[in-house]
Amino acid sequence: MPRVSPLEYRFIRACRGEDVDATPIWIMRQAGRYLPEYRAIREKVSFLELCKTPELAAQVTIQPLDILGVDAAILFSDILIPVEAMGMPLDFDPGPKLEFTIRNMADVERLKKPDPEEDMGFVLDTIRILADELDGRVPLIGFSGAPFTMASYMVEGGSSSNFLKLKSLMFQEPKVWHALMEKVSDTLITYLNAQKKAGALALQIFDSWGGILSPRDYKEFALPYSKKVIEAIQDVDIQIIHFVQGNPALLPLVASAGSDVVGVDWRIEIDEARGMVGDEQAVQGNLDPCALFLTPEQIEDRARDILERAGTKRHIFNLGHGILPPTPVENAKALVDAVHRISAAMNYHF
Amino acid sequence: MPRVSPLEYRFIRACRGEDVDATPIWIMRQAGRYLPEYRAIREKVSFLELCKTPELAAQVTIQPLDILGVDAAILFSDILIPVEAMGMPLDFDPGPKLEFTIRNMADVERLKKPDPEEDMGFVLDTIRILADELDGRVPLIGFSGAPFTMASYMVEGGSSSNFLKLKSLMFQEPKVWHALMEKVSDTLITYLNAQKKAGALALQIFDSWGGILSPRDYKEFALPYSKKVIEAIQDVDIQIIHFVQGNPALLPLVASAGSDVVGVDWRIEIDEARGMVGDEQAVQGNLDPCALFLTPEQIEDRARDILERAGTKRHIFNLGHGILPPTPVENAKALVDAVHRISAAMNYHF
Repeated sequence: MPRVSPLEYRFIRACRGEDVDATPIWIMRQAGRYLPEYRAIREKVSFLELCKTPELAAQVTIQPLDILGVDAAILFSDILIPVEAMGMPLDFDPGPKLEFTIRNMADVERLKKPDPEEDMGFVLDTIRILADELDGRVPLIGFSGAPFTMASYMVEGGSSSNFLKLKSLMFQEPKVWHALMEKVSDTLITYLNAQKKAGALALQIFDSWGGILSPRDYKEFALPYSKKVIEAIQDVDIQIIHFVQGNPALLPLVASAGSDVVGVDWRIEIDEARGMVGDEQAVQGNLDPCALFLTPEQIEDRARDILERAGTKRHIFNLGHGILPPTPVENAKALVDAVHRISAAMNYHF
Repeated sequence: MPRVSPLEYRFIRACRGEDVDATPIWIMRQAGRYLPEYRAIREKVSFLELCKTPELAAQVTIQPLDILGVDAAILFSDILIPVEAMGMPLDFDPGPKLEFTIRNMADVERLKKPDPEEDMGFVLDTIRILADELDGRVPLIGFSGAPFTMASYMVEGGSSSNFLKLKSLMFQEPKVWHALMEKVSDTLITYLNAQKKAGALALQIFDSWGGILSPRDYKEFALPYSKKVIEAIQDVDIQIIHFVQGNPALLPLVASAGSDVVGVDWRIEIDEARGMVGDEQAVQGNLDPCALFLTPEQIEDRARDILERAGTKRHIFNLGHGILPPTPVENAKALVDAVHRISAAMNYHF
């Protein structure tokens, strides 16, 4: 049992549409290479070893809380852990490399349905350590990729400029595609439910690549599976963030999947995004990660612009994508401070 | 003097909002590697040699007209020709490589202001050959990159995953950025005006990378220069197509630059795009290039969907980005035929 009610957390309150004293902020990839403290640990272990050593993964998850003062912790892990658990060997050099990729129905049929405790227990152990250490401080956000992004990796083997292999399979072998997406979705459902059970108070479903689809194709090939995952993990005790990167025109469809929070990248102003999402869901975003290379004064100016457009309700401040490795730490800190200070003053005026 | 009035061309009529017997279609990169006839020529000359040999460049420009039956020819050339003419040596291996990149004001000051006839005469010679050979057949579309995309190449040296060098310069050295954009815009204005004088009946300004910007940054750092170029080349005799790839949320800003036609990639449905652009400008697009890997029947189904959403006025059919090299030629041909057949029948019903 947690010692503190989740409703005491600013982040949880914003997800649920409750009043907040200041707008909560966390930063995608806040546990990462821009931090010297993170790099110090990475000098001793590889990226995958770090993901698979709960004490160390918990340690890097906590680093940005102390350094930046953000309002939530995001589990340190890799998006491809469940892919490996499904039986596809994974390596990094430095980008992710899969030993083989999905080409046909036989490949899909060979995929295992992993047991979270047995096959990804190190993730759940990390969450259990964090849930205990963070209790009373900030909530822990667990995460997974969205089914579409997971399947994209499994078909392309890595990133791609036009995702032709992926779209060819989707268009030419829809049965294979849908079978793959069913299997991936089922894996993510058990994985995310296990993260929740282990102590995550929120779950982010991250669709890095959904934005490469037209609305028509997103609706047919991706959305039903994100929706299925969200419906299967939904609960009063868990806040679900659904973030599709790279195409603002998808926002109404993304919102229709039913999450508590809809992520917004920097390609659209957040007030316009809110207009597309509606008032029933919170929005998260949406500063361009490159804006952290401005001066602290200019960062503050951009933070104010977003806060004024978003209003002080149902908004979680974040970057529109992961923080970049060369980002100066003091600029990230300046952003967190500015968001708290400006939004607290805005709330005072309401 | 042309032998045929431009107004007899379906493509020109659609740009101007006149009635058409069928929706015109052309395909971005229609002169390219997916054609065996193109590959046969490329076996004998390098890409840059091909760009710089007017007879051959004209020949590959004409190939898709005979093979596909498209309604316009697009000049075969490379987007970086004016960058080379400004004094930045260019190579391909196979992607574009610039020998040096722009870092500071001294780099910008060293850039030459090229004379189109003297420094890019081979492009104008290609256009002159084509204007004569195509007269009475289809109009010729000339093109250049938008100032933002040109400057992006000049700062990044090639493509990039996050465009951090580019955005850092833009954010941290706005004076250098604006000086660079002024110089690039002036070059593009003389280049495009020379293309027009040589015989192009339309000009496409192609912003491959504008979509990486937030609306706020696009408005400040890119739009004023695209607008300046469009205003300086605008004329009753020329149709201007303005295409920013990668971010549908920018469409109202893109349209505000004042082109005759607004390009639309596949990330948004074309009726929604038209709603954002308004009725005064034509729209061009918007089939996903990967859809050409479907069966001819499915391609027809997607063509019909776009044609029905776009209506039969002020629409030029195109892909939402360049045709991919592995595309089966017969599928591209099936698309062209389907667009003509379906739209002609739609017009019959009106």
